[in-house]
Amino acid sequence: MLKLSAMSFIRQSRRLSSTYVRFDEFLRFRRNQAAKSMLIQVSGKDSSSDVKSYLTSNFGPLAGIYHYSVASSVKRVTRSAPSVNYHWVIAEFENKASLEEALKACRYPDNAVPFRSHMCWFSKPLMGLSKSTTPLDNSIISENLDEKKSSLNIPLPVNSTIAEQMKILQMQMKVSETSMRARFLTVHHLEQSVKALFPNACALPFGSSVSGIGSNSGDLDLVLLLEEKGIFPKSKARQKKIRLQFQRKMLTSGGAADARHQTVRTLELLGDIVRFFIPGYSQTHKILGARVPIIRFVSDFTGLHCDLCYGNSSGVFMSELIYMMGCIDNRFQPLIVTIRSWAAARNITNPVPGAQPTNFMFVMMVINFLQHKQILPTWGILFNNATKEDTRVTEDGIDCTYLRDIGELQKYFFPKNGHTTLEELLYEFFEFYANFDFAAKGISLLTGSTSDKPINTAMYIQNPLDRQLNVSRNVNINEVSRLQNEFRSALRTLEAKSSGQ
Amino acid sequence: MLKLSAMSFIRQSRRLSSTYVRFDEFLRFRRNQAAKSMLIQVSGKDSSSDVKSYLTSNFGPLAGIYHYSVASSVKRVTRSAPSVNYHWVIAEFENKASLEEALKACRYPDNAVPFRSHMCWFSKPLMGLSKSTTPLDNSIISENLDEKKSSLNIPLPVNSTIAEQMKILQMQMKVSETSMRARFLTVHHLEQSVKALFPNACALPFGSSVSGIGSNSGDLDLVLLLEEKGIFPKSKARQKKIRLQFQRKMLTSGGAADARHQTVRTLELLGDIVRFFIPGYSQTHKILGARVPIIRFVSDFTGLHCDLCYGNSSGVFMSELIYMMGCIDNRFQPLIVTIRSWAAARNITNPVPGAQPTNFMFVMMVINFLQHKQILPTWGILFNNATKEDTRVTEDGIDCTYLRDIGELQKYFFPKNGHTTLEELLYEFFEFYANFDFAAKGISLLTGSTSDKPINTAMYIQNPLDRQLNVSRNVNINEVSRLQNEFRSALRTLEAKSSGQ
Ligand SMILES: Nc1nc2c(ncn2[C@@H]2O[C@H](COP(=O)(O)OP(=O)(O)OP(=O)(O)O)[C@@H](O)[C@H]2O)c(=O)[nH]1
Ligand SMILES: Nc1nc2c(ncn2[C@@H]2O[C@H](COP(=O)(O)OP(=O)(O)OP(=O)(O)O)[C@@H](O)[C@H]2O)c(=O)[nH]1
Ligand SMILES: [Mg+2]
Ligand SMILES: [Mg+2]
Repeated sequence: MLKLSAMSFIRQSRRLSSTYVRFDEFLRFRRNQAAKSMLIQVSGKDSSSDVKSYLTSNFGPLAGIYHYSVASSVKRVTRSAPSVNYHWVIAEFENKASLEEALKACRYPDNAVPFRSHMCWFSKPLMGLSKSTTPLDNSIISENLDEKKSSLNIPLPVNSTIAEQMKILQMQMKVSETSMRARFLTVHHLEQSVKALFPNACALPFGSSVSGIGSNSGDLDLVLLLEEKGIFPKSKARQKKIRLQFQRKMLTSGGAADARHQTVRTLELLGDIVRFFIPGYSQTHKILGARVPIIRFVSDFTGLHCDLCYGNSSGVFMSELIYMMGCIDNRFQPLIVTIRSWAAARNITNPVPGAQPTNFMFVMMVINFLQHKQILPTWGILFNNATKEDTRVTEDGIDCTYLRDIGELQKYFFPKNGHTTLEELLYEFFEFYANFDFAAKGISLLTGSTSDKPINTAMYIQNPLDRQLNVSRNVNINEVSRLQNEFRSALRTLEAKSSGQ
Repeated sequence: MLKLSAMSFIRQSRRLSSTYVRFDEFLRFRRNQAAKSMLIQVSGKDSSSDVKSYLTSNFGPLAGIYHYSVASSVKRVTRSAPSVNYHWVIAEFENKASLEEALKACRYPDNAVPFRSHMCWFSKPLMGLSKSTTPLDNSIISENLDEKKSSLNIPLPVNSTIAEQMKILQMQMKVSETSMRARFLTVHHLEQSVKALFPNACALPFGSSVSGIGSNSGDLDLVLLLEEKGIFPKSKARQKKIRLQFQRKMLTSGGAADARHQTVRTLELLGDIVRFFIPGYSQTHKILGARVPIIRFVSDFTGLHCDLCYGNSSGVFMSELIYMMGCIDNRFQPLIVTIRSWAAARNITNPVPGAQPTNFMFVMMVINFLQHKQILPTWGILFNNATKEDTRVTEDGIDCTYLRDIGELQKYFFPKNGHTTLEELLYEFFEFYANFDFAAKGISLLTGSTSDKPINTAMYIQNPLDRQLNVSRNVNINEVSRLQNEFRSALRTLEAKSSGQ
């Protein structure tokens, strides 16, 4: 089943683009799922069936139930002590009302700050009652969310082609159903915690969790917006003129420095709330000096490393554009996953920010390469053919108005190279950038071409949304030459492998 | 009408104690009122009728409407510029549902953090519409909340007795209906802001706002409790055993130092929320080093100076005890109000904490004096005759279990001196403390007697709840002798006045 020929890729690709799910629909679907779900700590996998029957009989039918385990992040007493696994169940109710019932019934722990959340603990049956006789329910999906952290230890079928291996790698690496639910649940939970103050608040995941190129081990990037209308525009219903308006707080005069100050203060406050009140988060760090200030913390209940930013919706739109690339051509995702895994294995990318290339730069480079091959459209085509419904402008004035209906795209973009295999694309990618004149040329996803650099940096990749910015500004000349040497050495490896076959 | 004889005092006193309202009932009543009310800024007093008809016709009938004005706390451009008055209306709906409707309809201001509250702004009728023809509604109560700040500029009827003047002073000084509503609305609003995180949270006013001895110009002392059950115990309904329990945050190991640390951190966070998010508060100061750490801020919309503390429910119980004293004998409130006004006029008390006596010490001294007169019971009687329903223990272990039913008190306490006039009591109070041996004796409200001091301080008033504490620990020997000189000089003034009559 995993052995897919190049042709079946192409067929699948065609099928995808006719039945694709728009990014905002995908977000809505997952958010809705999270809003009907609760996260329940159990004593072990065996309890899952018990939870299922308990919830069903007390509160209402479930739409889905997912068990997972994660290693405890609590410090071990001695280094040699075994790390403990915690077990969790994500239970999605069919109806929101059942969840409300369950949360209403939920007890508060004694001697602790009584914090309401969607995160509970399921106790063993009471003494005196006969031991639970719920039969083990094998339909419950179960997963260890700590697994698959290492991308290269995957058993590949013997005699598989490189293209097949790339496809398998992508299937194995991609964010699992359970991890996807855990991510949206984490985001939802944070959103709930600020909704009392800001009832229109909206927290959204972005980055590789939702752009279609992530893995279970990827971090969870999330943004808190004070209004969701920027992302999910509402058709303005004619409403009768209301003479009441809420009082507001005037903190700033509205200048750019003030806006940054407000962002930083808001984030700090959110960080404090996460740190001191919301159960299940630890290791909070404020990284407020960065271009995009963030709060970094660990979600102990899901094992996710979270980066929270505030008010910066352009990251969500960037994720949408990357997501759309995967919908337009299904070779994009296996290609980027392979290249990211390779870059990580060769220590080219580094999770710690510095002078090394980042995963995000590789995404930009892969898209630019596929534009050059006319497999993906230039983003100029998307921007120039936007409809009125596509109008979006971020709070800080970045225009994110681009064509979102991939069906419509067929009018403006005529892809080529539909038969080029993943293996060929991988080879050509390395070749393209091994010979790239980074000293003279920059990369632009808008034109799809390589253009003259507007500024003199070792490497230039124009940020396609905030266009004065260079995504690769931190990369120095040594890293560029190391990068090109790695491309050449990858080429040699691929050549040796294909001549050996 | 204001000329009340000593006998009518006593009659009123009897009536009071048979129809008195329990403190917790009083709190419940006012909290419920606040929960059905909204605070609406209007352009002037004339708009009140307009608001009334607008709210009634759009959302439902009102139970009450109160207009007030307060001086703007916004800094004036020049010193000579006149201070601006802001106008507000407190509108209480008959039904909670109407309030919900109104808040749902309420618009968010453009270009501001969209914060939801019970505090709105009422815009003028739209252009094009004919000018509002709502007739002026004279039934709307209107008040300037900044007035009456000075206690002694009250026109007193000529030839009135001192006792009559004391009674008038108390009636004029006491917290007005509008100010009482503004206080409970402010507290309710703060409570709403933390309820998303802590759904059982309960904010309560305490101090002179609710103990029956306050004035409009008094500050608003308020406490945030994470659970209301300590104050309003619920009869435990037998509920079926629930196996779900919320996750909790483990911040502290539970030691006393940890508890204080947690209090301080929580308060800081609340202070930041007040400062950065909640509209209508300014001048936030953190006073975290005090025995009871507080956040101090100004409510711009009501002109109230607020002191917020956290988790410290003993202040509420202290207020209840003082409130009960007013119910037991109605000479208590005019006496304390007179003495507080005198002490303020003589600069004996000082709102800024220091070595001077505080208002609270005078409350303790007046109660102790009235116990000595057998007009008020010793608090020992209250503590020793508590019923099971009276059981209350604060989180930090202070026993607040005392008899709350004043009707029951008649079994244990037989008051004397029912005919002593207010004037006589005032004189005797000064006499009692002018001759008091503060060097050797301490004051205990529990025994009602003056006892030997357990520690060597200039003045000793045992805290009747937290009994190791000395309420007057800050008062030094100089202040004590100044205080006693003031008592003697007051005596001489009263003597001159009565011999002059
Ligand atoms: N404009 C800009 N956006 C960036 C940059 N780095 C990251 N981002 C945005 O932030 C998102 C999250 O960043 P990362 O977590 O580093 O990258 P990711 O795509 O999520 O990939 P992994 O987390 O490594 O799986 C990206 O998808 C981009 O939208 C950058 O240098 N410039
Ligand atoms: N134990 C103790 N409690 C105090 C002390 N001072 C104030 N309180 C409590 O805190 C409450 C509010 O304090 P204040 O605002 O200073 O006094 P108040 O009774 O409200 O009087 P005004 O605000 O002056 O009208 C009091 O009613 C007491 O319950 C003190 O020294 N010891
Ligand atoms: Mg990421
Ligand atoms: Mg006070």
